[in-house]
Amino acid sequence: MRTPSTAAARPLAVLALIACTLFGTLAPAHADEGMWLINRPPLAGLKEQYKFEPTPQWLETMQKSSVRFATGGSGSLVSSQGLVLTNHHVGADMLAKLSTPKRDLLREGFRAATLQDELRCPDLALDILWTIEDVTTRVNAGATPDMDPAAAGAARRSAIAAIETASEKATGLKSEVVTLYQGGQYHLYTYRRFDDVRLVFAPEQEIAFFGGDTDNFEYPRFNLDCCFFRIYENGAPLKSEHHLRWSADGAAADELVFVFGHPGRTRRLYTLDHLRFMRDVEMPKLLAKAWRDEVKLTGFAARNEENARIASDDLHGIQNGRKARTWLLAGLQDPVLLDMKKSREDALRDAVARDETMRAGYGSAWDRVAQAQQTYAAIFDRYQQLENGWRRSSLARHARTIVRLVDEREKPSGERLREYADSRLDTVERALFSPEPIYDALEIETLTNELAFRAETFGGDDPVVTLLLDGKSPAARADELVGGCTLRSVDARKKLVEGGRSALESSPEPLIRMMLSIDNAARAVRTQYEDEVESVERLAYADIAAATFAIEGDTVYPDATFTLRMTFGPVEGWKEGGAMIAPFTTFAGLYQRHADRKGLGEFSLPKRWLDAKSTLPLDTPFNFVCSVDIIGGNSGSPVVNRKGELVGLIFDGNLPSLVGDVIYDGSVNRAVAVDSRGILTALDVVYGAKELVREIQGSKK
Amino acid sequence: MRTPSTAAARPLAVLALIACTLFGTLAPAHADEGMWLINRPPLAGLKEQYKFEPTPQWLETMQKSSVRFATGGSGSLVSSQGLVLTNHHVGADMLAKLSTPKRDLLREGFRAATLQDELRCPDLALDILWTIEDVTTRVNAGATPDMDPAAAGAARRSAIAAIETASEKATGLKSEVVTLYQGGQYHLYTYRRFDDVRLVFAPEQEIAFFGGDTDNFEYPRFNLDCCFFRIYENGAPLKSEHHLRWSADGAAADELVFVFGHPGRTRRLYTLDHLRFMRDVEMPKLLAKAWRDEVKLTGFAARNEENARIASDDLHGIQNGRKARTWLLAGLQDPVLLDMKKSREDALRDAVARDETMRAGYGSAWDRVAQAQQTYAAIFDRYQQLENGWRRSSLARHARTIVRLVDEREKPSGERLREYADSRLDTVERALFSPEPIYDALEIETLTNELAFRAETFGGDDPVVTLLLDGKSPAARADELVGGCTLRSVDARKKLVEGGRSALESSPEPLIRMMLSIDNAARAVRTQYEDEVESVERLAYADIAAATFAIEGDTVYPDATFTLRMTFGPVEGWKEGGAMIAPFTTFAGLYQRHADRKGLGEFSLPKRWLDAKSTLPLDTPFNFVCSVDIIGGNSGSPVVNRKGELVGLIFDGNLPSLVGDVIYDGSVNRAVAVDSRGILTALDVVYGAKELVREIQGSKK
Repeated sequence: MRTPSTAAARPLAVLALIACTLFGTLAPAHADEGMWLINRPPLAGLKEQYKFEPTPQWLETMQKSSVRFATGGSGSLVSSQGLVLTNHHVGADMLAKLSTPKRDLLREGFRAATLQDELRCPDLALDILWTIEDVTTRVNAGATPDMDPAAAGAARRSAIAAIETASEKATGLKSEVVTLYQGGQYHLYTYRRFDDVRLVFAPEQEIAFFGGDTDNFEYPRFNLDCCFFRIYENGAPLKSEHHLRWSADGAAADELVFVFGHPGRTRRLYTLDHLRFMRDVEMPKLLAKAWRDEVKLTGFAARNEENARIASDDLHGIQNGRKARTWLLAGLQDPVLLDMKKSREDALRDAVARDETMRAGYGSAWDRVAQAQQTYAAIFDRYQQLENGWRRSSLARHARTIVRLVDEREKPSGERLREYADSRLDTVERALFSPEPIYDALEIETLTNELAFRAETFGGDDPVVTLLLDGKSPAARADELVGGCTLRSVDARKKLVEGGRSALESSPEPLIRMMLSIDNAARAVRTQYEDEVESVERLAYADIAAATFAIEGDTVYPDATFTLRMTFGPVEGWKEGGAMIAPFTTFAGLYQRHADRKGLGEFSLPKRWLDAKSTLPLDTPFNFVCSVDIIGGNSGSPVVNRKGELVGLIFDGNLPSLVGDVIYDGSVNRAVAVDSRGILTALDVVYGAKELVREIQGSKK
Repeated sequence: MRTPSTAAARPLAVLALIACTLFGTLAPAHADEGMWLINRPPLAGLKEQYKFEPTPQWLETMQKSSVRFATGGSGSLVSSQGLVLTNHHVGADMLAKLSTPKRDLLREGFRAATLQDELRCPDLALDILWTIEDVTTRVNAGATPDMDPAAAGAARRSAIAAIETASEKATGLKSEVVTLYQGGQYHLYTYRRFDDVRLVFAPEQEIAFFGGDTDNFEYPRFNLDCCFFRIYENGAPLKSEHHLRWSADGAAADELVFVFGHPGRTRRLYTLDHLRFMRDVEMPKLLAKAWRDEVKLTGFAARNEENARIASDDLHGIQNGRKARTWLLAGLQDPVLLDMKKSREDALRDAVARDETMRAGYGSAWDRVAQAQQTYAAIFDRYQQLENGWRRSSLARHARTIVRLVDEREKPSGERLREYADSRLDTVERALFSPEPIYDALEIETLTNELAFRAETFGGDDPVVTLLLDGKSPAARADELVGGCTLRSVDARKKLVEGGRSALESSPEPLIRMMLSIDNAARAVRTQYEDEVESVERLAYADIAAATFAIEGDTVYPDATFTLRMTFGPVEGWKEGGAMIAPFTTFAGLYQRHADRKGLGEFSLPKRWLDAKSTLPLDTPFNFVCSVDIIGGNSGSPVVNRKGELVGLIFDGNLPSLVGDVIYDGSVNRAVAVDSRGILTALDVVYGAKELVREIQGSKK
């Protein structure tokens, strides 16, 4: 195992970056850092560095061709009939839900030759960003200076709910207030939401994820990590006015490209102490859980083929997260990185200290963040395992949602837990009433693991553990909770919710009773988190953001928030261990890697690909890397050229990109994309998907 | 995942057991519990239950035919020419050390057709138990009642070293004082030690470990988990007066069988609070490390074939330990088990409380054990990670040994850390000067993992972590420690040891410097462990043992201590989920399982076995289960019949046996063995090893 980049190679590039971030006047060492707000594009930098001046029309087309997957990914409209391109691994969740023991879409792939063959997804919602408005003043209006952090936090949460509700009423659009700069600004985003989404095409997982966990985040790569969905409106394909044209020529080495997508979260504005918390508490604990889940689920999957099928999607998700966090933690454990962070922070704090007004207003902010982390460290396990952490079991997730939904509905929207605000109820209900398949064997395995995890963390005699286990072993309790559980029926879930409090409180369902029994404890730790951690952080980071703006101007981009961002940079390789990694791979490289690894295990290929080898143009570009600043959530983002044509499809970052959560190092951080030419050629030659090729190629604006 | 046995099925059998243990007069529900001392066999029970009365000669032959592998396993002499039978997985460590990139003995197996072809093992020592003497009085003599636990502990450790040294001087035999009943008794064991041991035969790992981690601890099983070594003395095969004859007929269902072997450790006499410590601290922490190691090493092995080869033995070890601990923890998390323990303990404590003398002498013992566990919980991580836990990296292990050996040699034997006492120095030097291969890639991987583990546990700014990392990331530091490390040469290690303190203190070797830098911290936590945990436990458990003997008589067997024990019971299956599991499997079942799993992954078979299918008598018994009380360390133990003939070879326990560390449930706990007929037929038909078959069959006393 190696660190993302050698300690010796990195400092110069990043120290220059620090200088550039802190003192905006210096020319950037590498201009490609930044996940820019679509309403605040870095026009000056683009013009200066790349002589490119996007028109408002160009930006609008990019914005309205970009698609957000509510499940946590990105995509783009690529035809006038609502055709959406994204990654196979973004769609994998849906492929799993649409599979049966007899038809394994992950393994076999899928192709709808006609509209009638397209498969409606059980619970997928796609969002297209329509408008943005700065509502910072309105959000902060209710939080007066005399309030303590908890009261200020409550006031802001209430204001946000009111703004969202009013916007939905006025526009009919899904409305979300986004917290930027960790609390420095608040913007209202409205989206067109589409919930009739159908599967059009997916390749076999073997080629979509060729090389598996071994090659994940590595490069060179050879993955057809794509799939196609179609948005329907009123039962017919969406007439998509805005969409991306498909470039016939793809991108060239050194060409400037743009990526529009929804990076999930970065923490580049975090303080040094906040990073120490990540290094010493958050990442170690989350990784330990990932190791546990991976070993347990791998053992479960090995038992038989059906287990392997039903665990496959979860297992890939766990492995992907594990590898990403491993490299992020490795970065945080590299003293060079934290030293750089310290220099940057010292410079900013010195500047604040030198100005009496700023010192009085913002000087204590860093210590307040540190204090919040100490509190968080003390409650981290309980917050993660009682309040969060029921995600992997569908039944437990549903039980928790029902218990909370019935409770929260009785309050005014602004006083509810935020995910139950009026503007978010449709998301809650879509997930709760999804007809996705639920597998008893996997549920028992998962719940056994989750219950044992809590017993191990808190001790077998902890009062909450006693409530969870009810006098049984984790395995026996999981058997009891899953065996005969009525919540696997959508109707039963609906009935419980409709029955309200009385139905809930008289329900004999063991999972409901369990979730009810721990609800007070879970809510208590959540309140403590919101009041003593999050609200303190919000106020402190708002101060730090204000100080940063005062000293640097507002040319700083905010951390990622799973909202639309623009990033850009050239198609280019990087230097690793003295050798240059070339930016493009080809189909020829795919077959070579397959041969080198004897086609075993993760390196097997689908029969279609083995058969097509003689007819495929082997020099077709397949994957490429570019210096754009992305992170998880960007999966499925379109890569476009200056003309706004689609030249690639983001599906991964290289290993050095994984520390990008906290710092961007342009000398080695690369995004990995499927080449538009590779996709089109594969569709044509390997899959014979002529109808799809025609639709894509006929797609002129 | 299921618990070892259902909560409903277990209580009766075990409650009866408790009654039997506490009040020796009741007839045992299942007589097969017990790892009996060879000098205190349960003659009355054997006679009553099985009408069997072993003669002293029978017992002596069993004792002197039994072999202990210093690396942690058992075996037996099976010919008059020093031929030793054990498990493939006991020999795997040697097979790995004897392998090269071109000759992978684990994958290919090995057969020496003549004595000249046998391969000498680089660092294997085998012990045969010769005499036993009770030295309890001598050990306790120096520990007077006015001493605090730490001083008493030091006095006992010093007495033990003196007894061992005197015995070695007097007898020339390797001498070890064994602590029984957690401190209730001390026995002096002397061994004939043999250090010229050569590899004779090993099958391919594919058939030795058919089914891999998936089938490990499961049943039915189909594993040829055997290999053969030969003891040499003065350059010639040992003339072994005592050895086991090989049964031609094997064992029959329901037949009484005996197992002689070296169970490593059980904790059946632990108090309730001690088990709570295991449940809430020890097992969760050790398992978390196992998950971590397994995921990291699996990723390393996946990178290429050479990585897979060099990591294979470690990986199997990690997976084996992980599965065993998983099921042990599952048992501890079953409230039924701890409730049973509580009933048993309450009864004993009540009996003590009712007698004024016993109350005054022993009444506080349980609370003192609990107090020791609280202390241990607080220092557990530091003790494990600074003092222990350098085992997986050969280079780090060697560096630690050199640092300690040079230091300890300067003190009198009785004042040294116990593993450096005169009587143990040959073991230390054998390991330190072993010419086993050391692989840089694996060393870097392992050290990166170990360093990162410490940084995650103690935090990146912990002073000891700062010493360990020396301003670098874990990966960069591991690169530095391994790259150019001189300790991979046996000569360099010898030279450093011979050079003594001055050579050590001036050594520029980074690993030596690192181990020196943390040695004070490591020794400090060890002292705290020995004084505040171990010594307190020893005194408290001596009191509990005395109370138990007073109330129950001394018919209680001591917990396992990796010394020779006898256990017995019938060949029989067990009931699982309403169905009976049959005791025997056959070669036919092997080929069926291979076909059912399509021969993929862990279920592949060597070419020899595929080719031999048509000529093998498919109804030959292959594996069987019996109700004998074994645990890790018993691997490789012979299974013998009343005539003392070898009928099988222990290689595993079933899943319900894994909670046997703390409790034995005769209704479901089964040991798994290779049938003597299966081994002989495979040697003959599959491998054509006529010379080995002749030696085994010609082996008459």
